[in-house]
Amino acid sequence: MRPRLSVITLAVDDLDRSIAFYRDGLGLPSEGIVGSEFTGSATEPAGAIGYFELENGLILTLYPRNDLAKDSGLPPDTPASTEFSLGYVADSRAEVDSLMRKAAEAGAVITDEPHDRPWGIYSGYFSDLDGHLWEIIYNPKLV
Amino acid sequence: MRPRLSVITLAVDDLDRSIAFYRDGLGLPSEGIVGSEFTGSATEPAGAIGYFELENGLILTLYPRNDLAKDSGLPPDTPASTEFSLGYVADSRAEVDSLMRKAAEAGAVITDEPHDRPWGIYSGYFSDLDGHLWEIIYNPKLV
Repeated sequence: MRPRLSVITLAVDDLDRSIAFYRDGLGLPSEGIVGSEFTGSATEPAGAIGYFELENGLILTLYPRNDLAKDSGLPPDTPASTEFSLGYVADSRAEVDSLMRKAAEAGAVITDEPHDRPWGIYSGYFSDLDGHLWEIIYNPKLV
Repeated sequence: MRPRLSVITLAVDDLDRSIAFYRDGLGLPSEGIVGSEFTGSATEPAGAIGYFELENGLILTLYPRNDLAKDSGLPPDTPASTEFSLGYVADSRAEVDSLMRKAAEAGAVITDEPHDRPWGIYSGYFSDLDGHLWEIIYNPKLV
């Protein structure tokens, strides 16, 4: 396996609502929903996803939880927030603070206000509308 | 927010076991554990993480679930597999098949054997030792 990761797919309850959070609330550019021509069935997943092109060729997609479950061959689990987090590296402490405020205004829950951590970063956590954790990080060692 | 994602952190139950899965089982290069000098406490998270540098500057880290919970200010949830998936783009159908076999040999569970999907990709899913989903994808449109 090469050290490669090309797509991050987040399970969501309401595709339109979550696209609006990331596109309109946080400002990520998006074409909106792609793949809606694949409508699925009781057993087959639909193909509609929210599609975001990130830097360096990385793709972020939003996929209804039930479709991810069908597509992966698993029953849908009860949602859980402490499975993973996504780390966004900001350019300054002020950008951490402002991005956390922006997320909260868009409906995110601040689970941990920004503060200095023992390993030398300043960061805070929010959970998105589906409970997925983001850590917004300023690392002075990277500047 | 820029369309940027720098770090993916996966919650794990056993750091050594999960590092071995990704490093020795799947072959991702890793320095192993970093940050073990930050030992934490009953309320403060420890800093030890499994650290993997991926292509394009992306970082994959493995973090004990209880530490991620403390660090993010949340109680640890019951583990769930249908929160997200990570997509790896292989260069051929044969690479999808061989990587799925390699993951299974390393202890992953194949949740969906590779097959053609309506939207034009060939892919399969496995869940890692902590239940995190990976989709191994061949997309002929990308070749």
